[in-house]
Amino acid sequence: MTVIPEAPHTTRTGAAGGSRPTAAGRMLSVLDAFGPRHRTLSLSEIARRAGLTLPTAHRLVGELVGWGALERDDSGRYSVGLRLLELSALAPRGLELREAAFPHLEDLHQVTRGNIHLGVRDGREVVYIEAIRARGPNPLSSRVGDRWPMHATGTGLVLLAHEDPALQEEVLRSPLERFSPMTVVDPRELRRHLARIRQTGVAVARGQITLPDLAVAVPVRDPAGRVAAAISVVVAADRARPRELACVLTQASRAISRTLGPRP
Amino acid sequence: MTVIPEAPHTTRTGAAGGSRPTAAGRMLSVLDAFGPRHRTLSLSEIARRAGLTLPTAHRLVGELVGWGALERDDSGRYSVGLRLLELSALAPRGLELREAAFPHLEDLHQVTRGNIHLGVRDGREVVYIEAIRARGPNPLSSRVGDRWPMHATGTGLVLLAHEDPALQEEVLRSPLERFSPMTVVDPRELRRHLARIRQTGVAVARGQITLPDLAVAVPVRDPAGRVAAAISVVVAADRARPRELACVLTQASRAISRTLGPRP
Repeated sequence: MTVIPEAPHTTRTGAAGGSRPTAAGRMLSVLDAFGPRHRTLSLSEIARRAGLTLPTAHRLVGELVGWGALERDDSGRYSVGLRLLELSALAPRGLELREAAFPHLEDLHQVTRGNIHLGVRDGREVVYIEAIRARGPNPLSSRVGDRWPMHATGTGLVLLAHEDPALQEEVLRSPLERFSPMTVVDPRELRRHLARIRQTGVAVARGQITLPDLAVAVPVRDPAGRVAAAISVVVAADRARPRELACVLTQASRAISRTLGPRP
Repeated sequence: MTVIPEAPHTTRTGAAGGSRPTAAGRMLSVLDAFGPRHRTLSLSEIARRAGLTLPTAHRLVGELVGWGALERDDSGRYSVGLRLLELSALAPRGLELREAAFPHLEDLHQVTRGNIHLGVRDGREVVYIEAIRARGPNPLSSRVGDRWPMHATGTGLVLLAHEDPALQEEVLRSPLERFSPMTVVDPRELRRHLARIRQTGVAVARGQITLPDLAVAVPVRDPAGRVAAAISVVVAADRARPRELACVLTQASRAISRTLGPRP
């Protein structure tokens, strides 16, 4: 397994802070300045990335530090603060699913020794609300909060396969990024792939992001029977047994759904 | 073990949104309206809790939904959205520590079958950046993002014991909330308690929050030798072996520090 490139940081509202006319919007553009490749920023870097003047950035950063959204380190650089962790723990889609799923994801990790992901759809992307990384010298660097295009990951393919046909077509018609020579970016091939996932209940994705990896993913249904999330195991392709992985994943998925179900 | 009350939601900037003069401040007061007991809110509830007029709340909520900080469900109620989860994953204090610690916390959980916490200090409180809950009918309901006064939890006592004397005195002089009849709220007794923690390197807290529980906690040091976090195990007091727990915790803490250390 090799370390994958960091998930592209997408801002659905556009990166240019200058295009945000409201004060509240400018504050959000300060937060948008931070990303996987920009975890700590100086004040002038924030101003530049957010498209703000230095005095405006200074005032907004001050408010955000006071509130706890940002923290200032000893060298005067800023990073995301713990108040946002606290707040994000209130996200119902993140928290309930994560708590229901965690023991079962832990079991999956113990049994398969692979990287485990719990993903939900957000817009046209999948966001990992839980990730357990395999131990070893080169674990896949997936993290909680990572965001990926749906066509490129096991969990994303499962979620896309069970979405409205309209949304599927919207994704298939959009530019599909290629992460490796194996990434399926042909809309017709993807459409067949999605049909097979619906039919079998399992997505098997080979080398979609990093060549030596194989991802197996299945849906997780809520008490109403809707697909609320997807779970996946990523292992090195040379030691992968996709059928066995699909069996343990399906078992885990059912256990999670039972935990999500209405209590007696 | 019994289910503990939800951690009090503290807003260090005060709850009244009306006292926030700036537009950016009003946006933060919308986010402050959400808490452990207020995970989903209607627009009018947000306006009332944030001290805003309905039109102002409507406009700010619209911006926050567009950005992904809030989500609107089918019934028109709002909750915290996944964009905040994504952003909070960038918090260096949360992420690096969590990743370095996770395999060792998992081992602790397997060995002790208890609730495991990884906490860092934020202001005068401890925030759990990781929590693994014991399985069973009534696990302690600690969650990632939970925030507690330092005097009341094992991790908080460890962090407080290793803080500047000035901050210690500030905490000891402040009103100390009592969560159970066992919560130590007498400043002199607490001061002795903190000295013992510094001397032994271990905090043993009995029934500080819920009577039948015993927490054992130890510090986690960064490569510079500073206390960066604390880890704890919480088990039912009747089956607790504090010395053994202290041994495995110390072992895990050293392993985490080694992972945090400079790579060759």
